[in-house]
Amino acid sequence: MRSNTVLTLLGLALCASAQRFVRFISTDGKEYTGDAILPAGDFDAAHSKQAHVIEGDILGDFTVTNQVKTIKTLLSPLPPDRTRTVRCVGFNYATHANEVNVTIPSFPILSPWTSLNNPIGPVPVTAGYQNQTTNGTFFVSSMDYESELVVVMKTKAFNITSENALDHVLGYAAGYDVSHRGWQIQRGGQPQPQYSMGKDADGWAPWGPAIVSPSIVKDPQTLNIWTKVNGVVMQNDTTANMIFGVADLVSFFSMGITLMPGDIIFTGTPSGVQLGKTNPVWLTKGDVVEVGTENIGTCTNTITYV
Amino acid sequence: MRSNTVLTLLGLALCASAQRFVRFISTDGKEYTGDAILPAGDFDAAHSKQAHVIEGDILGDFTVTNQVKTIKTLLSPLPPDRTRTVRCVGFNYATHANEVNVTIPSFPILSPWTSLNNPIGPVPVTAGYQNQTTNGTFFVSSMDYESELVVVMKTKAFNITSENALDHVLGYAAGYDVSHRGWQIQRGGQPQPQYSMGKDADGWAPWGPAIVSPSIVKDPQTLNIWTKVNGVVMQNDTTANMIFGVADLVSFFSMGITLMPGDIIFTGTPSGVQLGKTNPVWLTKGDVVEVGTENIGTCTNTITYV
Repeated sequence: MRSNTVLTLLGLALCASAQRFVRFISTDGKEYTGDAILPAGDFDAAHSKQAHVIEGDILGDFTVTNQVKTIKTLLSPLPPDRTRTVRCVGFNYATHANEVNVTIPSFPILSPWTSLNNPIGPVPVTAGYQNQTTNGTFFVSSMDYESELVVVMKTKAFNITSENALDHVLGYAAGYDVSHRGWQIQRGGQPQPQYSMGKDADGWAPWGPAIVSPSIVKDPQTLNIWTKVNGVVMQNDTTANMIFGVADLVSFFSMGITLMPGDIIFTGTPSGVQLGKTNPVWLTKGDVVEVGTENIGTCTNTITYV
Repeated sequence: MRSNTVLTLLGLALCASAQRFVRFISTDGKEYTGDAILPAGDFDAAHSKQAHVIEGDILGDFTVTNQVKTIKTLLSPLPPDRTRTVRCVGFNYATHANEVNVTIPSFPILSPWTSLNNPIGPVPVTAGYQNQTTNGTFFVSSMDYESELVVVMKTKAFNITSENALDHVLGYAAGYDVSHRGWQIQRGGQPQPQYSMGKDADGWAPWGPAIVSPSIVKDPQTLNIWTKVNGVVMQNDTTANMIFGVADLVSFFSMGITLMPGDIIFTGTPSGVQLGKTNPVWLTKGDVVEVGTENIGTCTNTITYV
């Protein structure tokens, strides 16, 4: 057994925390939190078949046990109701800001925790977001993908500096910011689009497959980040192109605002979204989207009309 | 004793729920939830000296007891951590949209639960929101008030119609949406202002003084709504001028999105904010702001530099 608290008190950091926190249903039908066991040479917990069971609370005191369970179904690394606030950054990659003609600086918005979803499975699209004709006007279901590096907070943070910001980070994950451009822009008020309705639906924020420890992701600004739609690469960029890096974002978001353990930050998407294209091809039912970040892993979700 | 659940099952609605839910510290130093006892002829629980103690959970099963406690300090009607999501509407009064030259329709944003605050007490303003000179450029602490009718959700709501929306409402309160126009607009990205940083600081959403039952507020679209700054009336309008009424807003927000018990909706502010004025006079330390809504009550908070 490895006790996070005890070993930290003893100054033994080596095995004091998990490397890749996952939450999953095992073959016994029960839900577990675990430290994913990766296939040799792989970094993606989406490919893990087993995990060491974690006892306790990964946002507080916990122990990684020697008990190994088989992963049947991967869930979001934290139960959605453990996250109080989901923060998203708009236009945090120069490459993306350019493609949609927006000037920097970036700016933050919030999403509801009810949008959080599992790293593998359906993204539900209800009637209000599908193609529709209202008062004789056709409204296109302009669903778009955004691959994002996700940051998970470990400890309370208030008015922290960029220098100290990463001390408050539990780890990193891949995130899929499902975006409906019609609700975001065409049906938004002017001059401000209504980001909220374009991104907030239940299940529109898959994330995972694991919360990967900073001991693995030593520098979050050097990672390849991508999206594939039905296997075709659509986004392929690097977190080095972020306008504001993770440390600056966490510091900025904490200005007069308390960030809480379990809070999640979506750090913005790079270039390659359909919104930036002259003839966009929107996502439709059955489309399989993989978002991924180097050393962290992938989420693979299917657009599902409900 | 009056049992909400039992009497509802028996079909006896008359005394089945509280009229004005308040949360308070009593003279014994303990925290209580109660049904406010109003001074004769008054509608504002901010003036209440006593309340009937409520046992149980006002978002679930509860009982209004005959025990009376003295109110020493009024708190926000729900503990902030009972609220999962705070939704805010931008530009939901034609009068306000006109004064700042924005076209309808309105659009929603979210605020973090950490912004929720008590109906009486300080609004903390940290250094990042005060006057400052950065790289030789002076940045004005352009703090503004927004008085808003607040709606509190009672039950889960998902894809509900406007006709059924008010069945999901626990009650109404007054709300004060503290807004920093500099962070919202000047320091926002273009063409989209960053509402989030302009409104999300800890304590910038006082609300209360009570959650007033729909049995008292039978029609939320006929209420006078106002703001006084240091006793001078600055906003004075009516909820009849809302572009989207409460029922439409709740329905709209539930489109593909699950609203949860305890979720709070700020329904937008009417005309009269400083942002709409040629020579705005921003709030500064010591300014006392009263926001109020007819039949519901008032919040009175002081801008406090911390």
